[in-house]
Amino acid sequence: MMQTNNKKGLLFIISGPSGCGKGTVCNELLARNKELKLSISATTRDMRAGEQEGVTYFYITKEEFEKLIEENQLFEYNCGYSGKYYGTPKKYVFDNLDAGKDVILEIEMNGAAKVKEQYPDGILIFLAPPSLEELHSRLVGRGRESAELIAERFNEAKAELQRVDSYDYAVVNDNLIEAVEDIEAIIRAEKLKVKIMSHKVKDLIK
Amino acid sequence: MMQTNNKKGLLFIISGPSGCGKGTVCNELLARNKELKLSISATTRDMRAGEQEGVTYFYITKEEFEKLIEENQLFEYNCGYSGKYYGTPKKYVFDNLDAGKDVILEIEMNGAAKVKEQYPDGILIFLAPPSLEELHSRLVGRGRESAELIAERFNEAKAELQRVDSYDYAVVNDNLIEAVEDIEAIIRAEKLKVKIMSHKVKDLIK
Repeated sequence: MMQTNNKKGLLFIISGPSGCGKGTVCNELLARNKELKLSISATTRDMRAGEQEGVTYFYITKEEFEKLIEENQLFEYNCGYSGKYYGTPKKYVFDNLDAGKDVILEIEMNGAAKVKEQYPDGILIFLAPPSLEELHSRLVGRGRESAELIAERFNEAKAELQRVDSYDYAVVNDNLIEAVEDIEAIIRAEKLKVKIMSHKVKDLIK
Repeated sequence: MMQTNNKKGLLFIISGPSGCGKGTVCNELLARNKELKLSISATTRDMRAGEQEGVTYFYITKEEFEKLIEENQLFEYNCGYSGKYYGTPKKYVFDNLDAGKDVILEIEMNGAAKVKEQYPDGILIFLAPPSLEELHSRLVGRGRESAELIAERFNEAKAELQRVDSYDYAVVNDNLIEAVEDIEAIIRAEKLKVKIMSHKVKDLIK
């Protein structure tokens, strides 16, 4: 309750165009840095084989989800093609930040903008593909979408690259480990900013 | 001549109270990162055994130094107890930045403030001692000053800790390697800021 700002965790919002490799980069980042907490989304879709409550998603009912919307307890939400809700609960993020944990939020770009709007202290990291060719082959390679949808995603992604200027940092995902090390450097540096460290330095004099 | 901003090097100004360990940290940082350039001071004092022109200092005459002052070619300068001048030439720093090199400038706190004033893009890093006890024993340990001067330096250093808020980052010099790694993370992160990376991301679309 009496926790001062400098003890609070930091929120890192990792986003970028479809096919930039957000998921792979975040998985490797979390595997290497066990102290980081990943923000967990809520959904109204059914749990699938291999998934876990509170790990893959928070699985809730449509009524529960709509209550969260009404009470402004979601940073952002959307309704998937299937009519199922997906969203980012604020409470899980804030509880971790208040407990001094740094939180990683992996999210598409419109969602990222909504989170930053509501939590300006969040640090926006743009993950860029190494090239348009590579982006295209990643979209094709994951085999999740039709040719038409891939073409649409590719055009969207090109437009999304233009939106880099609203971010704090940009990391090019050319080599997985280097991209993860870039993000680790950003996290380490953000924790050394004077607004975080000022109290620690002044405490030396007491 | 036509170099765009995003290709320019960055200036990192490393400063902090007397006895915080600036020299040791910068030496280790430069030994580990051969691509970094150290800003070289100019002085009117004589070269000593083991020193090298353009490495330890630029050794110039009093007339040459005063010409640099008149022509506003120094970020800062001062006159030592001995009546000899010491100062930071702008040209060496700017030439390296223009060539795309990142420059490290190790300097006491008043000098650091003057450099930042004249080059606001410079990134100010405050190096703090781990404790007041440690700071005192470092001032005593280096055996350069009289007891009276040590007491004066120690009081100055305490006052200087209060000035941390005018800096961009603060690093506690508790463990040499960790302090150097902190600075390496700051350098890496600063080069990932969107103002630097924006062109690189947008070039993907061309």
